[in-house]
Amino acid sequence: MADEPLRVPFEQLKSTIRQALLNAGLPEDVAEECARTHAESSLDGVQSHGLNRVPRFIDYVRRGWVDPEAKPELVGAHGAVENYDGHLGPGITNARFCMGRAVELAKAHGIGCVALRNTTHWMRGGSYAWQAARAGYVALCWTNTESSMPLWGSTEPGVGNNPFCLGIPRQKGPVVLDMATSQFSWGKIGTYRLAGRQLPFDGGYDAQGQLTRDPAAIEESHRILPAGYWKGSGMALALDLAAAALSGGKSGSVMDAEGRGSCTGACQVFIALDPYLFGSEEQVQQMLDQRIDAAHATAPVDAGRPVTYPGEHTLGRRQQNLREGVVVDPAIWAQVQALAAGSTERIVDLSAGEVSTQR
Amino acid sequence: MADEPLRVPFEQLKSTIRQALLNAGLPEDVAEECARTHAESSLDGVQSHGLNRVPRFIDYVRRGWVDPEAKPELVGAHGAVENYDGHLGPGITNARFCMGRAVELAKAHGIGCVALRNTTHWMRGGSYAWQAARAGYVALCWTNTESSMPLWGSTEPGVGNNPFCLGIPRQKGPVVLDMATSQFSWGKIGTYRLAGRQLPFDGGYDAQGQLTRDPAAIEESHRILPAGYWKGSGMALALDLAAAALSGGKSGSVMDAEGRGSCTGACQVFIALDPYLFGSEEQVQQMLDQRIDAAHATAPVDAGRPVTYPGEHTLGRRQQNLREGVVVDPAIWAQVQALAAGSTERIVDLSAGEVSTQR
Repeated sequence: MADEPLRVPFEQLKSTIRQALLNAGLPEDVAEECARTHAESSLDGVQSHGLNRVPRFIDYVRRGWVDPEAKPELVGAHGAVENYDGHLGPGITNARFCMGRAVELAKAHGIGCVALRNTTHWMRGGSYAWQAARAGYVALCWTNTESSMPLWGSTEPGVGNNPFCLGIPRQKGPVVLDMATSQFSWGKIGTYRLAGRQLPFDGGYDAQGQLTRDPAAIEESHRILPAGYWKGSGMALALDLAAAALSGGKSGSVMDAEGRGSCTGACQVFIALDPYLFGSEEQVQQMLDQRIDAAHATAPVDAGRPVTYPGEHTLGRRQQNLREGVVVDPAIWAQVQALAAGSTERIVDLSAGEVSTQR
Repeated sequence: MADEPLRVPFEQLKSTIRQALLNAGLPEDVAEECARTHAESSLDGVQSHGLNRVPRFIDYVRRGWVDPEAKPELVGAHGAVENYDGHLGPGITNARFCMGRAVELAKAHGIGCVALRNTTHWMRGGSYAWQAARAGYVALCWTNTESSMPLWGSTEPGVGNNPFCLGIPRQKGPVVLDMATSQFSWGKIGTYRLAGRQLPFDGGYDAQGQLTRDPAAIEESHRILPAGYWKGSGMALALDLAAAALSGGKSGSVMDAEGRGSCTGACQVFIALDPYLFGSEEQVQQMLDQRIDAAHATAPVDAGRPVTYPGEHTLGRRQQNLREGVVVDPAIWAQVQALAAGSTERIVDLSAGEVSTQR
């Protein structure tokens, strides 16, 4: 039984996080929305940006790096585009607000774009693609971050592993791509090290400059590998430049110079598109289902593991975790319970992979 | 001297391609625009989708897979979004028209989107990001294609290596990401095989299901590797679904069933955004330059090879090739010269890497 994961009912997880956030000074509505989003990420199996991030978020609130009272402020609007200053408010509520506005703009113009600056960590980027997909909209969104990954051909971090998300509404389960531009996150690398395992593919370089699957060697060199080598590197830099240009905000290198870490001051772009402008919902949904059926029908490497579309595992995990309880890290769960009970002790970040980088 | 590449002046290259296209039945204005785009791709060093594609394009015109007279037809418009049917016209003129419309829509609405269906191969996707960047607009664009790459966890092609482009206008040289979702193109793999060389990184699987750098083994297995393993696979499928949904067109699997190859019937999405809505051009350009300066300043792996941004090499190559002549493949150049001289012989595709795939 020692290997059985600790599971917590979803409502208990959410209400505990909510109380911890209230204790940290978040207004009720903000605490509710942030707690729901963190809890839903863990529910969907994305613990790294769900429960596991709550202590660090509260630490940032205490340091004054996140302003729990700040609201996004409209600083410009033109046609189907709006520009907001996030005033370092909670990244989740800033991002949810902006994706909501992008959907509203898309209702009026067919497409809508919101460019957000001076925000903070949005946690799981896929949350906002899910949000738009639930509303029936295709969504593109991305964020920049401070540097955590060497650019291709460099030995030191020079760009964020800026994630890119693409969501497509689908009645049988949305397609949601949520893709960091590094091959593995620092969190994943730390998780493998703690488990004493090698990565399944090369994830970075060792101190001798050789590609390696050894997580400890990558943490030592700080040379995490971009996904697709030069491709993920170029994509990360282009996403950074586009986000900062469109929002009038800070590029990753400006965030580096400020040195606060974890996306503090980041820029984000949210684009929503109406997929039913020129074809009926029935036609579009039928096309999506047929395309996915074709993907499922391709010969698998392992007979028991059919090909999946991005986000396909999520719904299954969500249902299982609603039934059986959400898997939590026992130490972090205890920490958040203590914060919910009113602990004001200094917060130690227990999430994996934080030994070697700011993120 | 045997290793000196054959170089042809840009204007001669363009006018020869133009005459070959006129002989194939393209109207004058279409021949001019297609010839310029093919020649500019070779000028920028992208021979694979420049001169090298001209014979196959003409073969497709002869087969009736490309209609040289067809023009994009507006089939729907809503706010900042337009939908066109490409009627299997030349992919280059269809795409250039649609990106031009996206820019016009962005002038009115801040952002513009054109979704195109029933088009043909757009050749070099970056051409359209460059087009928008030259006009001062940020651009996102992508295309779907028939299947050329196994989805992650599959042993047979099930998705196109659908490219994604992101362009950012910059006075000192635009940033243009032009990224296929496979790690290497079939053309690149063929080029390595012909040169008797191994790929610099794993590019696919051999017949035993092991990752390999051996181009011949990948051509034998047909198992090319998505960039970033599951990441490129998921991105390729999501881009396919989004393009088909937004345009009301054919997904990759429908194109597979039709079996004509080379993007015949493809869907494309063109999004243009005005980066100077909320900040002055001077402010935005200064931010871009500072960010790129910071990237250039990161420690290189090789002291003589500084880090670059996507598209940075292009301007240098363009200037060199304008001065010294555009590098061409001697056999393909001879073939296009013969087509320009009126040859009606059956066209043999001499471009590399076409032994094992439709693309």
